Amino acid sequence: MIKLGDLAERLSCRLEGDGDIEIKRVAPLDGATTGDITFFANPKYLSLLTQTRASAVILRPDAPDPPCAALRAENPYLAFARALRLFIPTLQPVPGVHEFSEVAANAKLGKDVSVGAFVVIGEGSCVGDRTTIGPNTTIGPGVVIGNDCLIHSNVAVRESVTIGDRVVVQNGAIIGSDGYGFVRRDDGTHEKIPQVAKVFIEDDVELGANTTVDRPSLGETRIKAGTKIDNLVQIGHGVTIGHNVLMAAQVGIAGSTTIGDDVMFGGQVGVGGHLKIGDSSVAVGQSGVTHSIDSNSEVAGYPAIESKEWRRAVTIFRRLPELKRRIEELESKLEKLRSRTDSSSGGTLK
Amino acid sequence: MIKLGDLAERLSCRLEGDGDIEIKRVAPLDGATTGDITFFANPKYLSLLTQTRASAVILRPDAPDPPCAALRAENPYLAFARALRLFIPTLQPVPGVHEFSEVAANAKLGKDVSVGAFVVIGEGSCVGDRTTIGPNTTIGPGVVIGNDCLIHSNVAVRESVTIGDRVVVQNGAIIGSDGYGFVRRDDGTHEKIPQVAKVFIEDDVELGANTTVDRPSLGETRIKAGTKIDNLVQIGHGVTIGHNVLMAAQVGIAGSTTIGDDVMFGGQVGVGGHLKIGDSSVAVGQSGVTHSIDSNSEVAGYPAIESKEWRRAVTIFRRLPELKRRIEELESKLEKLRSRTDSSSGGTLK
Amino acid sequence: MIKLGDLAERLSCRLEGDGDIEIKRVAPLDGATTGDITFFANPKYLSLLTQTRASAVILRPDAPDPPCAALRAENPYLAFARALRLFIPTLQPVPGVHEFSEVAANAKLGKDVSVGAFVVIGEGSCVGDRTTIGPNTTIGPGVVIGNDCLIHSNVAVRESVTIGDRVVVQNGAIIGSDGYGFVRRDDGTHEKIPQVAKVFIEDDVELGANTTVDRPSLGETRIKAGTKIDNLVQIGHGVTIGHNVLMAAQVGIAGSTTIGDDVMFGGQVGVGGHLKIGDSSVAVGQSGVTHSIDSNSEVAGYPAIESKEWRRAVTIFRRLPELKRRIEELESKLEKLRSRTDSSSGGTLK
Repeated sequence: MIKLGDLAERLSCRLEGDGDIEIKRVAPLDGATTGDITFFANPKYLSLLTQTRASAVILRPDAPDPPCAALRAENPYLAFARALRLFIPTLQPVPGVHEFSEVAANAKLGKDVSVGAFVVIGEGSCVGDRTTIGPNTTIGPGVVIGNDCLIHSNVAVRESVTIGDRVVVQNGAIIGSDGYGFVRRDDGTHEKIPQVAKVFIEDDVELGANTTVDRPSLGETRIKAGTKIDNLVQIGHGVTIGHNVLMAAQVGIAGSTTIGDDVMFGGQVGVGGHLKIGDSSVAVGQSGVTHSIDSNSEVAGYPAIESKEWRRAVTIFRRLPELKRRIEELESKLEKLRSRTDSSSGGTLK
Repeated sequence: MIKLGDLAERLSCRLEGDGDIEIKRVAPLDGATTGDITFFANPKYLSLLTQTRASAVILRPDAPDPPCAALRAENPYLAFARALRLFIPTLQPVPGVHEFSEVAANAKLGKDVSVGAFVVIGEGSCVGDRTTIGPNTTIGPGVVIGNDCLIHSNVAVRESVTIGDRVVVQNGAIIGSDGYGFVRRDDGTHEKIPQVAKVFIEDDVELGANTTVDRPSLGETRIKAGTKIDNLVQIGHGVTIGHNVLMAAQVGIAGSTTIGDDVMFGGQVGVGGHLKIGDSSVAVGQSGVTHSIDSNSEVAGYPAIESKEWRRAVTIFRRLPELKRRIEELESKLEKLRSRTDSSSGGTLK
Repeated sequence: MIKLGDLAERLSCRLEGDGDIEIKRVAPLDGATTGDITFFANPKYLSLLTQTRASAVILRPDAPDPPCAALRAENPYLAFARALRLFIPTLQPVPGVHEFSEVAANAKLGKDVSVGAFVVIGEGSCVGDRTTIGPNTTIGPGVVIGNDCLIHSNVAVRESVTIGDRVVVQNGAIIGSDGYGFVRRDDGTHEKIPQVAKVFIEDDVELGANTTVDRPSLGETRIKAGTKIDNLVQIGHGVTIGHNVLMAAQVGIAGSTTIGDDVMFGGQVGVGGHLKIGDSSVAVGQSGVTHSIDSNSEVAGYPAIESKEWRRAVTIFRRLPELKRRIEELESKLEKLRSRTDSSSGGTLK
């Protein structure tokens, strides 16, 4: 329980109403009740705001007055995220190495590391301070993991992967699996190109559940600081992803592609190999990017084109049967007109 | 070995032929031989029926006579499924908790539970009667799992997830991973919104291999009773899925979307966030659903439109080069006709 | 360290330059320096070749002379792959069965098998000589694995799966999960069809990270020798995949489809159920294959059509707004012309 006045202070919000109200929980606009704080950021939900039964609402300075106390914030969604953090019962894992784990004798564990049951930490690996490694996770030899990371259960981090600080890896993610590299032999069979180079996951990256990040044969695969990747995403070998990139679920990036900073990809986007995707560009969900993209562009469709152009074209796509009919009509009308003109002119003109 | 007469009775089928025939196996139409029972449901395979060497066939009352004994059933495919169950050697896991597992002291296990090697069951979790948990599976703290469930190996069920009765979770599936929720800070970096709310998997649900189901920050993620989900599917945070829904492999549902009962999605369908998908609606494989959909509708394409409309448009799509040529021809003919008309009329008309 | 002359011999290349040069490493064209060997195969990177600081380059007999020593090879990429193998520190796993593993008493392990920590090998399974099984991997009962396989960590191989020789399974892959087979009951619920038949992974196959291969109810699922499958791919139940097939990441193949030899699928391709895909055919990334395909064809789009045809159509697709405008212009011009003709002919013609 936190008094609303204290909450305002801790979230750096302007208080409107009684600072002594006791807040017990964070709840959604339509589910909130007495003792709850909620938030309003999307004007679409204005009717929910006017009807909310919450004790307080976090909202913009210019938003309408709610029927309860208010905390005014420039970024209500951010204030909400922080409020949530104050109220959740944090699952603090107990520091220590579980007795049923297998940590190599020469692995180095920092202070207050938590290693779950059935975890393997390979030869020469290092795990930073306060990092947690969930049960049934396998950390290969030669791995470096920074401080304050949370590696969930059933993850595989392969040999020689380097992970920065405050990285979160959701369950089942695979980091450092072999890139898909084969050379065709004369007899039509394929020879594996050894995939032996490194993977770097920089600070503050998050990788989603069952996402896979491949290692290359040469060079490196790198995901730069602050990038957040959703579930079931495929990052090919030799890919470089910039800072603060957002990738929704099931995106696939083929090998050797370079993605700039602040890029955003919707779900199920596919990006070809050996491309350059400029900073701050956006690809709409399910787009198939087959060419390099300039910075600040937004693309859609397959092959992906400028999304404005794509939107105009796709609107007409569904009217194709109508367009075809109009062409047929034009053809028949023109033919009729021509034969009429021919007969009108006595057939003397060709 | 079961006598055909007994089989007819156990499957509630009408017997045509010798009830004393001994059936040893269920086999496909074209691979069946003496001692086998097979089934015929798809008229496409009629020629295989007439040539089958099976000892008996399960088929509709109105299907042609096979060259062997017959079991007539209204739903031959269902009768086949049940026949299969009678003949398979069921892999009954031995009840008991494997000595190399880590079950929290305050976890509650029902009767005849089977817990495999290297399984973790967290603090305060409950597992119902006759439920099986495969090796290398991690069950977080505060999890409730019902009776008669089959959780295969290498699965992760995160904290506070609730699973009903008779649920099947295929290998590698992840339930309760953090939803993809971040707020942009002023400096362009992103702050994680704590994902701390619950996930409910109701009775008789099946989740495919390596499928991921995210938890939200508020509210809940819920998959209702009887829904069957294939492999590598992504269920975003705060999604609600109705009863008896079918989703083929690699489908992705973005956050906060609500899906009605009896919906069917083909493989690789993507559905945007915050949408409502009506009961009994269908999305054809690879569709990209960007708007809410009414009940009983069938959609296709990206953006998904009524599938009839899409089919008509797509047929014309491949003829676009021809349509373009016809437009060009029209333009040139019209131009010719106009200049002819102009000269014919002595150029007096404009 | 290997002398260039020795390297030429071991890679069967023609040496141009000083055979006594000492090579320490394989590096990319633009990152190579003294002591490195690199390779040049793609004419696009000619400028990198002329500027390389490598000590030697592997390249075609007809490629330009590099500014350093050269190894000439018909297939430089293959020679490069083999050079890489000579220089990498091979992570030879120590043969032996880890003390924290659970191998059934009646399982048979070949010579020099390596079984990692927290591995389960079920009743009656056989593992061939020199095969390695990574930590936290679960091998079901009745599984047969050949010689010289590398099964990485956190993999699940379900009951009765058969795996050939020299197979590589990347982390998190699932082999033999239940096919997605349900029959609708009269009340709208679905009954599971027991998925109890076998899966065969033949020699020299590679399966990517978190890829899933389902077992069918009858018949078999089979991936033939030499096929290489990337990450997060879904292989449905009863699918047969030919020899030396290449499938990029996130491809999905629905049940009972048969794929010929030497087929190539780009990333995120979807293939419907019960289809036949001819030998040596190609589907471009993100294609949706809804019909059977002849041998040697290349398809693209959704529904997938001949890729040449698709490319022509898609070029025009983005010009649809222009085509529509041209149709509208034609209509207005034609109308104008008609009314003019009408008035010109004194309105006597209809």
